[in-house]
Amino acid sequence: MAEIPDDHPRHDSLVTRHRIEAGVEQGITSKQGLIAQGRGEAFDYLLGEETTPTADGAERVAAAHLLLADHPVLSVNGNVAALVPGEIVALAEVTGADIEVNLFNRTEQRMQRIADHLRDHGAEDVKGLNADATIPGLSHERAKVDGDGIYAADVVLVPLEDGDRAEALAEMGKTELVVDLNPMSRSAQTAAVPIVDNIIRAIPAITEHATALRDASRDELRQIVAEFDRGAALDAAEQRIRNGDFE
Amino acid sequence: MAEIPDDHPRHDSLVTRHRIEAGVEQGITSKQGLIAQGRGEAFDYLLGEETTPTADGAERVAAAHLLLADHPVLSVNGNVAALVPGEIVALAEVTGADIEVNLFNRTEQRMQRIADHLRDHGAEDVKGLNADATIPGLSHERAKVDGDGIYAADVVLVPLEDGDRAEALAEMGKTELVVDLNPMSRSAQTAAVPIVDNIIRAIPAITEHATALRDASRDELRQIVAEFDRGAALDAAEQRIRNGDFE
Repeated sequence: MAEIPDDHPRHDSLVTRHRIEAGVEQGITSKQGLIAQGRGEAFDYLLGEETTPTADGAERVAAAHLLLADHPVLSVNGNVAALVPGEIVALAEVTGADIEVNLFNRTEQRMQRIADHLRDHGAEDVKGLNADATIPGLSHERAKVDGDGIYAADVVLVPLEDGDRAEALAEMGKTELVVDLNPMSRSAQTAAVPIVDNIIRAIPAITEHATALRDASRDELRQIVAEFDRGAALDAAEQRIRNGDFE
Repeated sequence: MAEIPDDHPRHDSLVTRHRIEAGVEQGITSKQGLIAQGRGEAFDYLLGEETTPTADGAERVAAAHLLLADHPVLSVNGNVAALVPGEIVALAEVTGADIEVNLFNRTEQRMQRIADHLRDHGAEDVKGLNADATIPGLSHERAKVDGDGIYAADVVLVPLEDGDRAEALAEMGKTELVVDLNPMSRSAQTAAVPIVDNIIRAIPAITEHATALRDASRDELRQIVAEFDRGAALDAAEQRIRNGDFE
């Protein structure tokens, strides 16, 4: 990889990309993950590359869901591991959630490398390697989960999730918190809480809200959850893409 | 890479992605190229994944420019080589254009592999390997071009070009024909003829127009070029992204 000139007008953006490319070198991010990163970049560009007030509200609701859950799980794929490994560990600590590795293109080697990478960033228990349960309605490797992890979870944070899996998890009755920069994607449309934001901004924001809400009563948390209007959140994001200032 | 289930709702899209991933395996497409592919996918999705009438008009104007040119050159990078190698060769044959390999992340190995790949698809002469001239105003490897290729060209087709290079080429006074799915990108904004379309559809369309216009007089070709309104073409694409039916 050639060095990026300091005077390149998109220097920061390119450096971020290189971080996810480093994930490829480490066997963490897949080639499909690189393409997904590009799609996200385009939507983030259209959204203005900042957390909108609506997204911030959804991040607070996601924090309330995680705190209310009996068994919350944070699902981690290759891009999530490459971009926000420490941030995921911090969110798991604040909310008491499990961390489970779950890949669209599952190989044992990538599973192991991602689990190791999360442990390097402070994770104590990383699920997903047992793969002793199956999500109904999915074919191939994508159905595999841990019986005491995602399979048993009541609330699942699925950042950057494939549409098929998002739908199948929702059909299992799980409360899905989805981080996805495309508000029209099936994942976002399926979610109980669609968070239309860059994962680099979203995960720390959820952690911050969870920290602030840690002493809230369950009634207060339930009220935050009840007041959330997922349709309005999706509409707001789509309107921003349609009518935002593109320059 | 796991097999894609036939029942996957985005089967075709995933197969297309795998084609560009094959380019990575062959040392043709860079990791940055995969991310760029993802950005393109997002914009193509917003545009409806079809050639708009405005884009088709721009493709006809591009064909006229190539036929009028004294020294037209088609610039090829890793994604172009992976996605449309035979189509580029066909366009070069119809218009008498040179083909020159030009990479954002230039290495001699990738240059050689892409040139070989184009020759495998019928290219007779592939420029870009001499790199004996320099585009003013660019640092590093990105400035290198062939003295008897892009450096000397009057009309250059630059599909999927980096914004810096597009601006630098325009400052050299070249007529730039840009294929870019983001109408707000600097490349598209810089172009004499911005073609907001998927390269898989755009290159064959330009070839088709060039074939149809082969017997047109220079006056007819000049009229087609003169009637083109680049601002209106960019506005139409942006309006479609803003107001298109997203579903």
